Amino acid sequence: MSRPRPLVPRSDPADSVRVVGEFGVIARVLARSGTAAAAEVGPGDDAAVVRAADGRVVVTTDVLVEGRHFRRDWSSAEDIGHKAAAANLADVAAMGATTTALVVGLACPPDTPTSWLEGVASGLADECAPMGAAVVGGDTVASAPDSAGVVLSVTALGDLGGRAPVRRSGARAGQIVALAGRLGWSAAGLAVLRRGFSSPVAVVAAHRRPSPPYAAGPAAADAGASAMCDVSDGLVADAGHLARDSGVVIDLDPAALAAACLEPVGPLQQVASALGVDPMAWVLSGGEDHALLATFPPKAVLPHGWTVIGAVRAPGREPGVRVGGRPAAEALHDVGAERAGHVHFG
Amino acid sequence: MSRPRPLVPRSDPADSVRVVGEFGVIARVLARSGTAAAAEVGPGDDAAVVRAADGRVVVTTDVLVEGRHFRRDWSSAEDIGHKAAAANLADVAAMGATTTALVVGLACPPDTPTSWLEGVASGLADECAPMGAAVVGGDTVASAPDSAGVVLSVTALGDLGGRAPVRRSGARAGQIVALAGRLGWSAAGLAVLRRGFSSPVAVVAAHRRPSPPYAAGPAAADAGASAMCDVSDGLVADAGHLARDSGVVIDLDPAALAAACLEPVGPLQQVASALGVDPMAWVLSGGEDHALLATFPPKAVLPHGWTVIGAVRAPGREPGVRVGGRPAAEALHDVGAERAGHVHFG
Repeated sequence: MSRPRPLVPRSDPADSVRVVGEFGVIARVLARSGTAAAAEVGPGDDAAVVRAADGRVVVTTDVLVEGRHFRRDWSSAEDIGHKAAAANLADVAAMGATTTALVVGLACPPDTPTSWLEGVASGLADECAPMGAAVVGGDTVASAPDSAGVVLSVTALGDLGGRAPVRRSGARAGQIVALAGRLGWSAAGLAVLRRGFSSPVAVVAAHRRPSPPYAAGPAAADAGASAMCDVSDGLVADAGHLARDSGVVIDLDPAALAAACLEPVGPLQQVASALGVDPMAWVLSGGEDHALLATFPPKAVLPHGWTVIGAVRAPGREPGVRVGGRPAAEALHDVGAERAGHVHFG
Repeated sequence: MSRPRPLVPRSDPADSVRVVGEFGVIARVLARSGTAAAAEVGPGDDAAVVRAADGRVVVTTDVLVEGRHFRRDWSSAEDIGHKAAAANLADVAAMGATTTALVVGLACPPDTPTSWLEGVASGLADECAPMGAAVVGGDTVASAPDSAGVVLSVTALGDLGGRAPVRRSGARAGQIVALAGRLGWSAAGLAVLRRGFSSPVAVVAAHRRPSPPYAAGPAAADAGASAMCDVSDGLVADAGHLARDSGVVIDLDPAALAAACLEPVGPLQQVASALGVDPMAWVLSGGEDHALLATFPPKAVLPHGWTVIGAVRAPGREPGVRVGGRPAAEALHDVGAERAGHVHFG
């Protein structure tokens, strides 16, 4: 494991947003923002106008706070843009839709380098570009005088392309539980960064720029997924939301989960071994990889990228998550996971 | 003028968002949020789904920072919710559209009273309810550890109802310039609050809860408005955006403006007289009333609520704003206005 190189931008007063001013910042940021295929009116007016051919629009928003959701010394500006977009694009995918446009709100200290904001804009644009989406509007304001950190608020719009939205509430006993995407990599990368290291590169990169399986969302909807959510807080936590909203038990199969997430042996085990951690702790409780979790009818043909990791059962005493039939809390305890997922306001 | 009563909520640790937790906060806030007529999927899933019958969706976002855009001792939580919604609803109206839904991002210190957030939610809901809109989703996160203030990010979606969006770039020489709504009232209210007073109530209320003429936006579009924007930064500043985007001169008629904004004599003059200010300074440069400014073909029949306040002229040497034919900077100087409008990052 090697020490990280510093990522904090050098402070050049002439490059600060205070000196460049709101409209200068907006012009520079827009130059990095690309064009949304669905935009009828793009940035620069009172509002943007985005085509919604389906007659409906999917909308979701996420707020990222410096010092809580990212650190400028652990992630480049481009990384933070990628990560902020990914959190929203994954939410849109989890409804069975594809992102068409983003709008971005930004509160930043007046001494923030404009080049840093350009980096965030580049990251947002690059994460969206493969699906033809782009930032179509935003608002950039100065933080409160006593606040040193950036707050980034991203809202994504999405198109269902005629599909019914896949809710969290549609799982039924007898169905199968399946996963698309990675679990635990972001948590492993965070554990590495927290200890002052920057490798293995694969897990650190996964923490800085998650790679959600966006196309797996609409594909799951087309294959008849009955319920779906993205795994942003941790598998047990997010499976719990799905279980409660559907009134069922989600029973995760530990062998299937290990096969899906820990085989072949790779950097996750390498980091876990170096840090004396059970990698299953990260698989069960690590957030921010933005895998997709869905339930399907038992005879559904799973689309490419989806793997069965459990079964939906009748709730018994109450809805919730089990691991190999046991309460999830016991399984989390056994592998040394502190909690099921992120605790906000902790 | 009377001293304001304190509006800062009493701190009850058991009511803090830290103790209530993210999901408790969300549940309490949603209980105040109403239902959007256009929502097919409301709050509580990965994303909301909003009907867009027009096949397009209008989208705009605004960020409000405590200490810059609002103060908890000057405005109640409900006021702040109203104001945050109004800024976005006015942007949607300025395109010729009607708001259908909001999503809200909120970063707040863990000791923020949950009752304060419920108040913000009530204000947002009440401002949207008359047009059938409501909050359909959001994200509530803890501020950075060193930040004492709330950051509120609101994104509005709107429906054009088959109209062409009214851009800022469509004004043409020979057209008329018209105004709907009030100017200067919010600035007068802010001047009162800054001096430690809370009356005249009319201007303080206008600062706390602007009353944009939402219906005037779609009505202007139907009447053939060629360009439109909302006046959020100040009349001269926002007319300047319209002038530059259209490549024209916006020539404001001071007599028509006085007739529209200062007759009959009312609280604006009362405050101006008490503070030794020329009320025209607030009319020309005061922001946040969210009046609508539009240009129309010369023979257009203006809809209810619209008043002619000037003319569009060929740009001459360069596009910009004039007042009675003179450069706007001179007119601002004459009435003692410090600047054309808000300067961000100042």
